[in-house]
Amino acid sequence: MRTPAATVGVIGGGQLARMMHAASIGLGLRLRLLAEGPDVSAAQVVRDVTVGDYTDPATVAAFADGCDVVTFDHEHVPTRILHDLETAGIAVRPGPEALVHAQDKAVMRARLRELGVPCPVNEVVPDAAALVTFGDAHGWPVIAKTSRGGYDGKGVWKLDGPEQAGVPFEGLDGLRANAVVIAEEYIDFTRELSALVVRRPGGQAVAYPISETVQTDGICTATTTPAPGLRPDQVRDLQAMALRIAQELGVVGVLAVELMQRADGSVVVNELAMRPHNTGHWSIDGAVTSQFENHLRAVADLPLGSAALRAPVSVMVNVLGGSRTDLLGGLAEVLAADRAVKVQLYGKDVVPGRKVGHVTALGEDVGDVTERAWRAARMLMGDDDE
Amino acid sequence: MRTPAATVGVIGGGQLARMMHAASIGLGLRLRLLAEGPDVSAAQVVRDVTVGDYTDPATVAAFADGCDVVTFDHEHVPTRILHDLETAGIAVRPGPEALVHAQDKAVMRARLRELGVPCPVNEVVPDAAALVTFGDAHGWPVIAKTSRGGYDGKGVWKLDGPEQAGVPFEGLDGLRANAVVIAEEYIDFTRELSALVVRRPGGQAVAYPISETVQTDGICTATTTPAPGLRPDQVRDLQAMALRIAQELGVVGVLAVELMQRADGSVVVNELAMRPHNTGHWSIDGAVTSQFENHLRAVADLPLGSAALRAPVSVMVNVLGGSRTDLLGGLAEVLAADRAVKVQLYGKDVVPGRKVGHVTALGEDVGDVTERAWRAARMLMGDDDE
Repeated sequence: MRTPAATVGVIGGGQLARMMHAASIGLGLRLRLLAEGPDVSAAQVVRDVTVGDYTDPATVAAFADGCDVVTFDHEHVPTRILHDLETAGIAVRPGPEALVHAQDKAVMRARLRELGVPCPVNEVVPDAAALVTFGDAHGWPVIAKTSRGGYDGKGVWKLDGPEQAGVPFEGLDGLRANAVVIAEEYIDFTRELSALVVRRPGGQAVAYPISETVQTDGICTATTTPAPGLRPDQVRDLQAMALRIAQELGVVGVLAVELMQRADGSVVVNELAMRPHNTGHWSIDGAVTSQFENHLRAVADLPLGSAALRAPVSVMVNVLGGSRTDLLGGLAEVLAADRAVKVQLYGKDVVPGRKVGHVTALGEDVGDVTERAWRAARMLMGDDDE
Repeated sequence: MRTPAATVGVIGGGQLARMMHAASIGLGLRLRLLAEGPDVSAAQVVRDVTVGDYTDPATVAAFADGCDVVTFDHEHVPTRILHDLETAGIAVRPGPEALVHAQDKAVMRARLRELGVPCPVNEVVPDAAALVTFGDAHGWPVIAKTSRGGYDGKGVWKLDGPEQAGVPFEGLDGLRANAVVIAEEYIDFTRELSALVVRRPGGQAVAYPISETVQTDGICTATTTPAPGLRPDQVRDLQAMALRIAQELGVVGVLAVELMQRADGSVVVNELAMRPHNTGHWSIDGAVTSQFENHLRAVADLPLGSAALRAPVSVMVNVLGGSRTDLLGGLAEVLAADRAVKVQLYGKDVVPGRKVGHVTALGEDVGDVTERAWRAARMLMGDDDE
């Protein structure tokens, strides 16, 4: 490939690809999109769009032909297709050996155990009886997860007792064929954190400040950056852990490490993601270099940019589909009410609970900034009575 | 039209349209482009591109059909085509009555005189003899300008004495048919300034901090924002003047007022532009809301955003085509040398002197920031010996 890469292929046409495109324009990179449909979020704004099925090897091969590098809006491209691309001489970033850790939670848990990274006690369970044995040994409730195909709270179950042990195995049928069930210790966490890093092929890496994230029904709904109440040494330790995982797994691009923090301050890893991540959306407005720009710089093998804060506090709140369907009308209200709030709309039809945009407020005082961000998000959702 | 506008047509496919597109993505607006060719700067990055001639009424009418509003990358669309669009019910912003002041310097000078805005002494001169009379009355050198069709230093002549009085009339043949020659008093300015404001249809307006601009051979090559050495009352007066011109002329969108400042601090207006302007590029990184976002918000009739600074000093330097043709290689060097510098590349082939991108550095100290921005720009130009 040419170094740095000039044409970046992105598989998947969601809002992550859409926001990557906005970041690609200034870098002078050519973004090429493989989209699920002609008018999905990113396809509305990118010049060079192929509509096709990312699970079809011939479609992906034709799309990738002419790209200097291929990267992703999501983690669902089958590993064998990615190996085919590499065999054909196309750079794939992150590569399939790294990406499998974001695709398969069983592989991820095994690898993190090898690395000594703190995780909930966990075990692959072949059937309900094994799950009951796990629960009786480690205590109930138990968290059960499908190893593949889960997202935004789907494919995760909290099981209160042995009588519910069959549930995840029923749920599995609707998910990936090659998925297994993982039983995990229930962590009584007080809050969730995200450690987001970006790594370049040669190993150069940057770590963003740690974010506190609010999850509602398994969906990230808000982040505060930097996470309040962390000591500087805790921040450094969490960043170092995420950088180490990125290096050991050979990640290129963004790695988001989702963490659960207990009352005593200790953390365990919940999930890994290898693409720009909802917990890093604040960086578009709140960091010197956004996660989208740094992801592109990483996969194109360009030097990474500063991940430093541009304001003391950034609060991002997701706009989920609510009672308001007229987002542009909502936007006019939001912009009239707050001259400094930043809005990203994703070009999606409003469906209840669907992520259709996000807002970011910046400032000095975490209370004020949080209130501004939520007020703007509520105006866009139409849930003023919340 | 729908209010706010959802589909924004942009006539002209240069870098201004390209950077408008980047700003449109977060707002959820659909940008539709009328481009001079299939691979011009903005056409590389926008989904919905029509390739056609903006001077052909049928082409523009077909393009505008379905747009909620039409705006511009440049000021060269014939007035009668814009009137046709308005007659057909398409909003044109800025409208033809305002835009003519940016298209025709004779109209602009006459209107600013009516408003009592300080300008060089000036007069439309029908022939060389009249120009000599003007020069003998007001002193040599004389600045002669074509009223229409000039840009980036073209169509402007500095005439040292009566023996050169024929030059602008020869030059006129290559420019617009309906152009006349304006003779203007030579202003012995010490520096140039830019007052950039944005106005919405209902009259809401914001003023950016005043920029100092460096022009080289009539091309803007660098800006420093805020302009050093202005007193707060001078800043307020210049912003008030620009806001008043925008209101009196009925501008919607960006109005850039280019100013010449004399040694005694007094200013005169040099030019008006009614579109995002080179002297406002710093605002992408240095202001809470960029000129591109505010231009779109204005033409879509959305409330305008804060024009406040995000850093004490922003320095923007244009990247002009130089000895380096491999811009992506230059980008890698620039990003390696400075982790916080921001780069915009325009997707253009390198031609000597052509604007192919710009860089912006932000910081506390004007000397440091200036040095960082110029160093980055020189790396991209390949003129390290300058």
